[in-house]
Amino acid sequence: MTQYTAPIADMKFVFEEVFDFYSHYQKYPAYQETTADLVDMIMSECGKLCESELAPLYQSGDKEGCQFDDGVVTTPKGFKEAYQQYIEGGWHGLSHPVEYGGQGLPQSVGLIRTEMVGTANWAWGMYSGLTLGAMNTLIEHASEQQKNMFLHKLTSGEWGGTMCLTEAQCGSDLGQVRTKAEPCEDGTYQVTGSKIFISAGEHDLTENIVHIVLAKLPDAPKGTKGISLFIVPKFNVNDDGSLAERNHVNCGSIEDKMGIKASATAVINFDNAKGYLIGEPNKGLEYMFTFMNTARIGTAMQGVCSAELAYQTSLPYAKERLSMRSLSGVKQPEKIADPIIVHPDVRRMLLTQKAISEGGRAMIFYAAKIVDELEQAETEKERLKLDDELGFLTPILKAFLTELGCDSANLGLQVFGGHGYIKEWGLEQIVRDARISTLYEGTTGIQGLDLLGRKILLQRGRSFKAFTKEILSFCKDHSMLSDNVHKRRMNKFIWPLSKATINWQQYSLRLALKARKNRDVVGSASVDYLMYSGYIAMGYMWAMMAQKANERIAEKPDNIEFYRAKVRTAEFYFERIFPRIKTLSTTMMADPKSLMRLDEDSFSFL
Amino acid sequence: MTQYTAPIADMKFVFEEVFDFYSHYQKYPAYQETTADLVDMIMSECGKLCESELAPLYQSGDKEGCQFDDGVVTTPKGFKEAYQQYIEGGWHGLSHPVEYGGQGLPQSVGLIRTEMVGTANWAWGMYSGLTLGAMNTLIEHASEQQKNMFLHKLTSGEWGGTMCLTEAQCGSDLGQVRTKAEPCEDGTYQVTGSKIFISAGEHDLTENIVHIVLAKLPDAPKGTKGISLFIVPKFNVNDDGSLAERNHVNCGSIEDKMGIKASATAVINFDNAKGYLIGEPNKGLEYMFTFMNTARIGTAMQGVCSAELAYQTSLPYAKERLSMRSLSGVKQPEKIADPIIVHPDVRRMLLTQKAISEGGRAMIFYAAKIVDELEQAETEKERLKLDDELGFLTPILKAFLTELGCDSANLGLQVFGGHGYIKEWGLEQIVRDARISTLYEGTTGIQGLDLLGRKILLQRGRSFKAFTKEILSFCKDHSMLSDNVHKRRMNKFIWPLSKATINWQQYSLRLALKARKNRDVVGSASVDYLMYSGYIAMGYMWAMMAQKANERIAEKPDNIEFYRAKVRTAEFYFERIFPRIKTLSTTMMADPKSLMRLDEDSFSFL
Repeated sequence: MTQYTAPIADMKFVFEEVFDFYSHYQKYPAYQETTADLVDMIMSECGKLCESELAPLYQSGDKEGCQFDDGVVTTPKGFKEAYQQYIEGGWHGLSHPVEYGGQGLPQSVGLIRTEMVGTANWAWGMYSGLTLGAMNTLIEHASEQQKNMFLHKLTSGEWGGTMCLTEAQCGSDLGQVRTKAEPCEDGTYQVTGSKIFISAGEHDLTENIVHIVLAKLPDAPKGTKGISLFIVPKFNVNDDGSLAERNHVNCGSIEDKMGIKASATAVINFDNAKGYLIGEPNKGLEYMFTFMNTARIGTAMQGVCSAELAYQTSLPYAKERLSMRSLSGVKQPEKIADPIIVHPDVRRMLLTQKAISEGGRAMIFYAAKIVDELEQAETEKERLKLDDELGFLTPILKAFLTELGCDSANLGLQVFGGHGYIKEWGLEQIVRDARISTLYEGTTGIQGLDLLGRKILLQRGRSFKAFTKEILSFCKDHSMLSDNVHKRRMNKFIWPLSKATINWQQYSLRLALKARKNRDVVGSASVDYLMYSGYIAMGYMWAMMAQKANERIAEKPDNIEFYRAKVRTAEFYFERIFPRIKTLSTTMMADPKSLMRLDEDSFSFL
Repeated sequence: MTQYTAPIADMKFVFEEVFDFYSHYQKYPAYQETTADLVDMIMSECGKLCESELAPLYQSGDKEGCQFDDGVVTTPKGFKEAYQQYIEGGWHGLSHPVEYGGQGLPQSVGLIRTEMVGTANWAWGMYSGLTLGAMNTLIEHASEQQKNMFLHKLTSGEWGGTMCLTEAQCGSDLGQVRTKAEPCEDGTYQVTGSKIFISAGEHDLTENIVHIVLAKLPDAPKGTKGISLFIVPKFNVNDDGSLAERNHVNCGSIEDKMGIKASATAVINFDNAKGYLIGEPNKGLEYMFTFMNTARIGTAMQGVCSAELAYQTSLPYAKERLSMRSLSGVKQPEKIADPIIVHPDVRRMLLTQKAISEGGRAMIFYAAKIVDELEQAETEKERLKLDDELGFLTPILKAFLTELGCDSANLGLQVFGGHGYIKEWGLEQIVRDARISTLYEGTTGIQGLDLLGRKILLQRGRSFKAFTKEILSFCKDHSMLSDNVHKRRMNKFIWPLSKATINWQQYSLRLALKARKNRDVVGSASVDYLMYSGYIAMGYMWAMMAQKANERIAEKPDNIEFYRAKVRTAEFYFERIFPRIKTLSTTMMADPKSLMRLDEDSFSFL
């Protein structure tokens, strides 16, 4: 059985000590009431709900899956009841505007809930997660009338939402979209086409589903410049907000997938369905991009969730399972064998999961602070700067954390030996569920291109420079040359981190110069470059966490062991995980020829 | 749909050119008839069978799985018919003694079949694979009477076989085995106990199943020194070899697993079942070890099979799927977009699978030559030396190739983007099926301990020294200082390989010295050390293959592109995969403290 307990101590450490979120909230009038007491209460109550209602549905939801019958999708047993409890508790609209019935809390607080829900039951969380995606799009780009028509019920969770982008012939390459929207005389549109891979596209949790659909107007320019964005509800909506007749939107089937089986992945067919244009024509892709950062951070969270759940499930097993004796001497002579946690290699697998989940959490909340700042930005200049910062971090978070989430899930399984392969223990489900995370919301390859091609090369590394400068400034403040009292304890982190960050700057510049001569340099280096960047970004988090922990240790608090464990995990990260940059710095700088010189016909001689 | 075509061109390259198997066979009187013509015919016929009969059952077998009903296990539709065809064709006993009805061909030839069957349908192949394991044990250690009683029907495939080691409380730590064997007056034993994870433990393919069971005699010493080995057939056998009454052996259930669902993993209960002691009492574990090398090489093959099937399935998709334009200029202007194989990162994923499957195949057949030599060894001294050589390579092959097989399967899935997550394409099944390979037949962690603890430290690196010497000798023969005509073309391989091999020697010595002071060094370094060793061993294979290919290219043969592709894949391996040793050489040498200093109670503060 998988095990989940909300990691409140670690979340509080991140919120209070590492990033000092409570001073941050006090900067903004809108967040004056977001105090430590309130957030602690949210952590505790949301944790209870996730532990008692969502976690127990994790394995049963996978076993049962979603059922499809002639256009109707039934979610697994217990999903609907849990959903009712969740929306009644107000958890759904936690970070959404008060004017539509939300609680108006910062996005960073919403992410606490996203993590807890996601770790307890990722597939279940997909339904409200997709609704949040749809809501964000409407808040940003819809007309007042559209907002009034849809946002109240979406915020309450009475209605669900989706994002309909992908079609059978195109996923990442949205210029190929074929779905069409014909204007009607009343100002609405008739949308026709078929969308695939629509998460939460059809289900029985809500009375209506509001689809946000990418489609092309009749006179649209070719490619990505001709894409517009439409609202297409499953049931039409009367002026008073009540449900009208069924729209011409139908679920054709749901996919039989590797994992997240309790999340319905639907084929949605639009057949002259009534739709409402969002914003201006042909600006659909641009609108998508503006909220893509937050959607991708939500997906990045899946990496943390996979690592956390795998860790929480494999750790107790490692403490209980008796096998062999410690090579450095018997540890529990009264037992028939030692528990496997005495074995260094089992510890390596556990500590990797721990370092990834805690380091990943820090990365997410580091970015969440920028999300809050962006939401409260007062000038366009400030907004653009913050959007750049977030845009730089987003592909790193999304691809790096989901890749490591998959690795962590696999290590959790490996701790169980052969038993990990048996469904009963749940580890194999974590591996299967995690596997989607490097695919949807832009594959790892797409994130790599976004980071290196767009954020580094096109934008000339604006935010990259600021980020590396920030790391180096942190390093300086805690280096052996500083006055910092913990500098001796910090040296083991500061030295490799500062060295790697300087190299990161140099490698980035060299790649930019190389890419001018050969555009294949970008795709050739991109994924390794992204992973390299991720290890440094996570290294920065671990150095910051070690620094805060060292400060606290000096005060000899009651829970001193918590802080010691932080420092030791940071040491583990720098000694065992961080050195991965050595290989990556070689492979990302390798000549693209190593990838390009093999002729397409010579890949196989079968 | 997964795609499988037997990779005959590559197999022939390995057999004829890289390892010159036909001169090797001519050294032994027993293998005089194993000519290139015969082996070509075997490759071709076995390939056809696997392509037409086994591959089509790959996905249907997974979907249907094995059914359990009150002790009876039914394999998926088509499995029984394919099995009949397979044993009637004589494929099962290909490399087993003629005196029991086998074809007496070298084990290396048997491995051709093992690879083809395994790539086409690994789960299906488990049934005859386990029988081979049981046969090998009997051939090595059973009495003449026992051999006559069981080996004929096992060799023909009319009966199946299993290896019953694991119990609920112990897998790797077999000293904890509780199954008991009480001697009877007639010289047989009554075996009582419950075994789990018994692959092919119960099924409907054969009329009898011969279990090889680890159990303890009443007066047995504690731990691994008190384990004996027994033959326990499902149906008892009359003196004339015909079936007698059912033995007290029952299948309690089969496991619900992540993958290889068409392979029945059974709980087998023995309740005073009639058994026959193999060899001497209390030598069971020793007997197991003698055939473990071949069993583990069989499992190592799963890594090659996973990589090969993932590659064969993802390559055509990468050539067909249209998405985005090449960054270095439009490649197929007549199409709406370029096929994704133009993108460097997609090529990185494809080439990794290619390099692993071809490099892994070379590693397996390099070891297979030693298996043949061992079988034909004439003196005990020679036998011991070869057994050492094989014993050194085995953990590397098993753990390294299965870990990379899993990685390759995941990359194959990744090539498909979101479509890879859908069952229909079969990639997710390859990932699920591959995942067992790093667990059974000794986990990666166990292989790491076997390599570093036993083969390097306990045996003082006898075979390690010989192997590295061989690599360095190859490097010398093709170095810039040699007279070799291809030395300029070989330099890019020889230089990194020789440097890494010398480092490997030095690191091994340093680890040995460190381990004397701190036994935790072994477990702390073991898995990274094993992977490091694997990359060098595979580098040696790629260097040898590049060398042979360069020789052939100089002759300007008709199929020159085949050889060019080999050289380019070798280049890819050395530029993109081989640098992984950089990280591994750091992490394997890291102080064990990074793993050991965290107190057991401090792993979690939930």
